[in-house]
Amino acid sequence: MSKKIMAINAGSSSLKFQLFNMPEENIIVKGIFERINDPKGMLFSYTVKDEKRRTELKIISHVEAVHYLLNFLLEEKFVETLDELEGVGHRVAHGGEFFKSSSLVLEKEMEQISQLAKLAPLHNPVNLAGIQAFKKSLPKCPQVAVFDTSFHQTLPESQYIYPIPMKYYHENKIRRYGFHGTSHQYVAQKAAEIMNKELSDLNLITCHLGNGASVCGVKEGKSYVTSMGFTPLAGLMMGTRSGDIDPSIIPFLQKERGMSADEISNLLNNQSGLLGISELSNDFRDVIEAADNGNKQAVLALDIFISRVKQTIGAYAAELGGIDGLIFTAGLGENSAKIREKCCEGLEFLKVNIEKNKNERNDVIISTFKSGVEVLVIPTNEELMIAKETVSLI
Amino acid sequence: MSKKIMAINAGSSSLKFQLFNMPEENIIVKGIFERINDPKGMLFSYTVKDEKRRTELKIISHVEAVHYLLNFLLEEKFVETLDELEGVGHRVAHGGEFFKSSSLVLEKEMEQISQLAKLAPLHNPVNLAGIQAFKKSLPKCPQVAVFDTSFHQTLPESQYIYPIPMKYYHENKIRRYGFHGTSHQYVAQKAAEIMNKELSDLNLITCHLGNGASVCGVKEGKSYVTSMGFTPLAGLMMGTRSGDIDPSIIPFLQKERGMSADEISNLLNNQSGLLGISELSNDFRDVIEAADNGNKQAVLALDIFISRVKQTIGAYAAELGGIDGLIFTAGLGENSAKIREKCCEGLEFLKVNIEKNKNERNDVIISTFKSGVEVLVIPTNEELMIAKETVSLI
Repeated sequence: MSKKIMAINAGSSSLKFQLFNMPEENIIVKGIFERINDPKGMLFSYTVKDEKRRTELKIISHVEAVHYLLNFLLEEKFVETLDELEGVGHRVAHGGEFFKSSSLVLEKEMEQISQLAKLAPLHNPVNLAGIQAFKKSLPKCPQVAVFDTSFHQTLPESQYIYPIPMKYYHENKIRRYGFHGTSHQYVAQKAAEIMNKELSDLNLITCHLGNGASVCGVKEGKSYVTSMGFTPLAGLMMGTRSGDIDPSIIPFLQKERGMSADEISNLLNNQSGLLGISELSNDFRDVIEAADNGNKQAVLALDIFISRVKQTIGAYAAELGGIDGLIFTAGLGENSAKIREKCCEGLEFLKVNIEKNKNERNDVIISTFKSGVEVLVIPTNEELMIAKETVSLI
Repeated sequence: MSKKIMAINAGSSSLKFQLFNMPEENIIVKGIFERINDPKGMLFSYTVKDEKRRTELKIISHVEAVHYLLNFLLEEKFVETLDELEGVGHRVAHGGEFFKSSSLVLEKEMEQISQLAKLAPLHNPVNLAGIQAFKKSLPKCPQVAVFDTSFHQTLPESQYIYPIPMKYYHENKIRRYGFHGTSHQYVAQKAAEIMNKELSDLNLITCHLGNGASVCGVKEGKSYVTSMGFTPLAGLMMGTRSGDIDPSIIPFLQKERGMSADEISNLLNNQSGLLGISELSNDFRDVIEAADNGNKQAVLALDIFISRVKQTIGAYAAELGGIDGLIFTAGLGENSAKIREKCCEGLEFLKVNIEKNKNERNDVIISTFKSGVEVLVIPTNEELMIAKETVSLI
């Protein structure tokens, strides 16, 4: 029988939701609360059957947004009673080593998610706030946490231990966790369906290229190597994040320019990447347009981005001993034929051959018939993945 | 006519020398002063025709070592007069963006090398001390500086600019410089000779694997991409250096454990890498032996090291669009068949196929006849490269 499942993605100033009929995967309604915690009130927009509506609300907190949402579902007759909601799945940023998969959230799990806030201070507390708000309003409805990190809990030790003294792993839990796990897992599963193979028979590289960006090497269906690390700063260059740099740059800058630890974090997370190089924007669309118009710093920013994606693909192909499929997803991966083309340029030795027309049409399969590696464009759908995980646990 | 050329490599507490007959490349005598600046005096060892001698000296400075060396050459009749020395080549750690190739050292160059000490505080000052000592004793003999960085001055902007705000490049000269340049250049040239091809027709990956370790992607004979960065900390895991880590780890540790910039530098440069993981030794020989005896942390340390080398090979193959040759050099690269074997494992997709017997014999060519990529073991010889560069400039 069909079940109504809510998928929630709570950020520091926003709360996204999608209500699904499962297992049909139909979206009943989806929307977003923005400007949460803004004293002027929040913005609420939602979409039903492709029609978009938008309204301003005089409420300010996550809890109030959840109340509003539940009333809205009743008033607009998306549900007749709230008991129809059979499960709520929440995206949670950090599951540490404790959560190796998605989990029903009871008291113990709330406590764990709260403790892990040390590793994700900007995200876990708001994710938890979302869970608490739903628990309060729907005490009988099961809540499920789906972690950005848990797909990567299969990384082998040689990929998750950093070459610094072991005590920092034991005492401070410093290790590679990896993020975007829900997205990498979702597109890897989809790729197997499209390729008509068992996921466990495939070696894939999944490229989640958005404002945040990461690459994952999926070995026989499991995450084996990934570019984000202890935090989502690591790996590729991103909209405002530097990705990997020579670590020595940090103490050098601190001594030369008297910068504090917080100033360094802010510099590398919020002022670097595409924005830092282009000096124009952290939005790839703006920078691509500027580059097309001949702006040299924009060209340089894209060249660096592309080089890092390409090198990471090569690195993970080496780690996996060759690959069967290469998947592009997320904003840039799904929509920029140019970026995909550049990322695949020169990878013929890896048996990656894409067809210009297919790529420019954003086809699902953009590789040539003869290409040894299937190159796919798969829209990510973290909300659907959250709904699926929720169904499997309730 | 044959020329006597001295090659000098001055470190903070040592000074190595080799006296060559050039262009024959014959070594007349070579040796090392150790424990320089130790109040107990220094150790002097030298080798003539495979016979090694060793003595303790009651002198302490670089200047005194150079005086002693020149007297020694006369007394032991390696030269009849010091005028026979037609050039002295010095290894210099950092040439910044100023030195794009080796250079005769006059006043202006001394000034530049001194200014670049900000980027290489441990090395440039002692390199300069060596040059000054020779200039004083041999005022008429040309001195040549051969930089660890200059081979990498051909990196394209997209490889040397870090994705942080551009002002740090302009104001603080923060960029990728790359190191071990003399070694990468030497083995790339040798590889072309062995392969009987023009270096400018070849794409090579050179792996300098010693206690310090770096990889270089050589495109048509020029350095195009390399793993060391702003400093020699970056890239691979090394004896005591971490190599690349998630940069966020640094501000996290500073806040959690109250560590200063200097403590972080010391941690990542001197306590990490092989030593940090194995908790045994920073010497690969010790760790390999412990791993062979089943020590788990030693196994893990080697696994991480090998994974990073392999990933870097894959990354640079992607950057270069495939490769013609893969070269191993330096202590570990020249002597450890096991490490080479592990680094090549799973690279068949890159057309890298090595032959077990050849590899175990440390042959020059260790790839199979059918291998699409020539895999070579080439002993590095930075001193000879310094002598060659010196001859070409005097």
